[in-house]
Amino acid sequence: MIDLKGIFPPLPTSFNRDESISHEGIKKNILTLCSYPLSGFLILGSNGELVMLSEREKEEVYNTAREAIPADRLMIAGCGAESTRETIRLVKQASRAGADACLVLNPFYYKGQMDLRALRAHFHSVADASPVPVLIYNMPANTGIDMSADHILEIARHPNIKGLKDSGGNLVKMAAVINSMDEDFQVLAGSAGFLLPALSIGACGGILALANIAPSNCCEIYEHFTGNRPGEARKKQLELIDANTAVTRRWGVAALKAAMDHLGLYGGTVRKPLQELDDSTRASLIEILDKAGIESLKP
Amino acid sequence: MIDLKGIFPPLPTSFNRDESISHEGIKKNILTLCSYPLSGFLILGSNGELVMLSEREKEEVYNTAREAIPADRLMIAGCGAESTRETIRLVKQASRAGADACLVLNPFYYKGQMDLRALRAHFHSVADASPVPVLIYNMPANTGIDMSADHILEIARHPNIKGLKDSGGNLVKMAAVINSMDEDFQVLAGSAGFLLPALSIGACGGILALANIAPSNCCEIYEHFTGNRPGEARKKQLELIDANTAVTRRWGVAALKAAMDHLGLYGGTVRKPLQELDDSTRASLIEILDKAGIESLKP
Amino acid sequence: MIDLKGIFPPLPTSFNRDESISHEGIKKNILTLCSYPLSGFLILGSNGELVMLSEREKEEVYNTAREAIPADRLMIAGCGAESTRETIRLVKQASRAGADACLVLNPFYYKGQMDLRALRAHFHSVADASPVPVLIYNMPANTGIDMSADHILEIARHPNIKGLKDSGGNLVKMAAVINSMDEDFQVLAGSAGFLLPALSIGACGGILALANIAPSNCCEIYEHFTGNRPGEARKKQLELIDANTAVTRRWGVAALKAAMDHLGLYGGTVRKPLQELDDSTRASLIEILDKAGIESLKP
Amino acid sequence: MIDLKGIFPPLPTSFNRDESISHEGIKKNILTLCSYPLSGFLILGSNGELVMLSEREKEEVYNTAREAIPADRLMIAGCGAESTRETIRLVKQASRAGADACLVLNPFYYKGQMDLRALRAHFHSVADASPVPVLIYNMPANTGIDMSADHILEIARHPNIKGLKDSGGNLVKMAAVINSMDEDFQVLAGSAGFLLPALSIGACGGILALANIAPSNCCEIYEHFTGNRPGEARKKQLELIDANTAVTRRWGVAALKAAMDHLGLYGGTVRKPLQELDDSTRASLIEILDKAGIESLKP
Repeated sequence: MIDLKGIFPPLPTSFNRDESISHEGIKKNILTLCSYPLSGFLILGSNGELVMLSEREKEEVYNTAREAIPADRLMIAGCGAESTRETIRLVKQASRAGADACLVLNPFYYKGQMDLRALRAHFHSVADASPVPVLIYNMPANTGIDMSADHILEIARHPNIKGLKDSGGNLVKMAAVINSMDEDFQVLAGSAGFLLPALSIGACGGILALANIAPSNCCEIYEHFTGNRPGEARKKQLELIDANTAVTRRWGVAALKAAMDHLGLYGGTVRKPLQELDDSTRASLIEILDKAGIESLKP
Repeated sequence: MIDLKGIFPPLPTSFNRDESISHEGIKKNILTLCSYPLSGFLILGSNGELVMLSEREKEEVYNTAREAIPADRLMIAGCGAESTRETIRLVKQASRAGADACLVLNPFYYKGQMDLRALRAHFHSVADASPVPVLIYNMPANTGIDMSADHILEIARHPNIKGLKDSGGNLVKMAAVINSMDEDFQVLAGSAGFLLPALSIGACGGILALANIAPSNCCEIYEHFTGNRPGEARKKQLELIDANTAVTRRWGVAALKAAMDHLGLYGGTVRKPLQELDDSTRASLIEILDKAGIESLKP
Repeated sequence: MIDLKGIFPPLPTSFNRDESISHEGIKKNILTLCSYPLSGFLILGSNGELVMLSEREKEEVYNTAREAIPADRLMIAGCGAESTRETIRLVKQASRAGADACLVLNPFYYKGQMDLRALRAHFHSVADASPVPVLIYNMPANTGIDMSADHILEIARHPNIKGLKDSGGNLVKMAAVINSMDEDFQVLAGSAGFLLPALSIGACGGILALANIAPSNCCEIYEHFTGNRPGEARKKQLELIDANTAVTRRWGVAALKAAMDHLGLYGGTVRKPLQELDDSTRASLIEILDKAGIESLKP
Repeated sequence: MIDLKGIFPPLPTSFNRDESISHEGIKKNILTLCSYPLSGFLILGSNGELVMLSEREKEEVYNTAREAIPADRLMIAGCGAESTRETIRLVKQASRAGADACLVLNPFYYKGQMDLRALRAHFHSVADASPVPVLIYNMPANTGIDMSADHILEIARHPNIKGLKDSGGNLVKMAAVINSMDEDFQVLAGSAGFLLPALSIGACGGILALANIAPSNCCEIYEHFTGNRPGEARKKQLELIDANTAVTRRWGVAALKAAMDHLGLYGGTVRKPLQELDDSTRASLIEILDKAGIESLKP
């Protein structure tokens, strides 16, 4: 049984100035973040710019990350692809690299055809083929598809599908899924913006972009909640709202990387067409981080 | 200072078979619900079929409701209309009838023109004219407009605007509003589906369709939360999810009224084009209510 | 048989400075516009600020308009309301006033419940009760509901439902409706932005905000098309695109009224929360009108 | 100067039963379709299951197609990818293979970041790098992004960007683009559902899924229109509406391939998670094709 409790950063993929992958950057970031009580890492999620990488680069990043992630922390591998055959290739590759679980995004290009029949067939074929547990990834802001609770519950019946990362922020849906599944199906908040609300209705933790730059703050929300200190948990949750929005919905991965550079991690560039922050946005970002009490990370 | 803590049912407007208003039904329901620890009532919200009533009927319902609602329970009056002038007419009428606060929906027909300038002018004119505090009502599922946190914060600067009912269920937005406002600006969950998540980040209570048929269950979530019993609160929240969906998003006001009839309140018909539940839907509804542990109400 | 061929302006409702109705303005505008080869008028459509008027004002406007509209031009009355009973009251009132047809918007506040069963019941009850032919009005930008071709075709089976005004601009849907219906079911473009495309697939004309300020230009598109001069029709259509967008989607009714004032009609104010154009927008608007070759109207 | 007048089928990529590419199928289909007066082919568009292919397969398909497409027909190569670098790799590869133009889809995964700055940078970098003309591809149903006329016009300023394929069906937008651009910027309808409306406002032709199975019917619409026979054009357009919807929005690529099999072309399987039509859907499809007068193709 895989245990997904706690906080996971979805690690950005580090690039050099010429947009080639910086394996050193990836390793440095993992090393630094491991000094915090994080449960593990998501490699090649949306923040990892999965869709920007070549086939070969994906495999290299899985390998680099696993080498750097110690055995007592989980590695969850992002394995989304449009075709079932490519997704299966990725889950096998990630498993060989040592991933503990695979996070599988629903295909979404042919939106009109992604009905329950297609989605169930996809997830079940992938789960059949995967040597490690599969987690469902619902990410409506990027995919344009918001899987319903009913669809998720149908898909989740497969014995090798063990959890859900929901980035949509629909707490009613998350509660409906949690209410209908056994305890060993684990639901993770997909954004720090609604971590505490998700914990309040039974989520086991979160995969949070913000945990890359504010790992202790994010872990504190979790610990206050599990320690039954709702007032402290609420205070921490509220003070992180604006910082979280800044590095996710508002300014995206470029802001997350700029924040990492500012806080002592390896941030680096984004792959185009993603654009670097301009100077005034960067200044606003730093102000927001300061106001949220987010401090430099120590290796 | 108005105190909006706790649970408020948005009372349906009772109709006779011929769709005329049943003032007896309204009074009976208020009387019965007052035996539960509810903080008050919303009269003529979305569940009150506000948009179905004539100008004269609205005034009559405000009056009937206030006569029936005892002085120690709040009456919040729904006063949404497309024009500022009509909205002002309604808040004055409701205030004269004895409303303690007015809930004002954003105009939404001319969606493309409802920018911040228009919305702020509307809410501020209404708040200037209203003898009682004004609450902002964000209801994207019905209006097709989801006001942003930034817009809500700009509108909320008026001294006579004292709170927000948010039915959109976006907890990040609710947290952003709560984080930026003083403590005397009060945020209410607009649906029982996310009551506990909303409380977890600082909402003061909820205006909940479900509180019409499950007042004690809804109040228990609130009491477990404020009593620092997160496990019990979560258990109650999860078990109400399906019942709440049934009487709101899934089958709407007709289901809420059918449930009221089943549980000993006055339900009655809906105004067309809303349609009565067919028999098989009604049977499914009753099964869902039973499974959620929702029991008959006692006057 | 009602004949809906040609061009109809959806007349704005004229207001005085204090937002009271200017019946003189309405009459003046109708008189002026009747010097152009328009087939008639829509009274109290979206551009007529229907949703801003009181019950009494609607009746007054129907009456004023019919007095001013000569017998050889059609009067189509906008009769949208959320409840079936209020819609029926309006179609009867409009018929008594002398309307030749009623344009009925689908109810839309309870979006989740407006399935085919509810919509069909609504339209058929209204069509049963209406002494004059009923036209379906699909207006997704304002209602948030875009009725499908299948739903429209089901609703259109009623013998007293004689046409469709479609403002959504989905030409595939309009073609699907035209292809499935008899010739006596008439489809009208709901915006000058797609008048020629709609004519090309069999629409009989249009109800066009732009026809209030550019009646001759709009009629020329129609005449070039029916006269088999596709090149001239295209040229006219293209040159009106920006002007049409300006007085509809971009700046709305306030721009339409400002343009009317500029061109010698009675424009006047809008009802709040609609906002007057600021000076720089007004200047941009006039520039766009000039560029499109839209000239002052002569009574 | 590239001349894009006329009708282009977006060729499906043929697969064998095991989902490997059938180069024979591709060649056979091109050979057959070349007996119709088509202007050329789009290779690896949405109907070509571009997003389903590996890096290597894309190159192979470009090569196979160009070998089969005679020099007097254009080959447009679909080159969409999320990163600018990968898109450039594809346009170079396609150009080497002999493509006459490249169709570039806007990146869309990071929707919130795809503002004008990002999109312009992307398209202009690609156009700088491409040896052949670049066409903009707007495909909102699949990408969830509907580029505005303003954005398209900004992007289109690059001298190597020569046209637009718009699959959104918003004729007002297409007209706004045509109205603002020189004559040498060419706009293509992206679906047979609105071919005639698009021609009416100045589109030069269309890239139409339906042209794979009904090349003569599609070409007839074009020829009736250019031959100034609006009645015949309308008749043809209307009779193809349902068939077009069947092989696009309703049942997708699987239906297109099933229709190809039925009509004497190589259809074959789709790549999963796309699902084969079940038997009853296939029967409905064939009925729709028959009703539309679509007949078997002759090599």
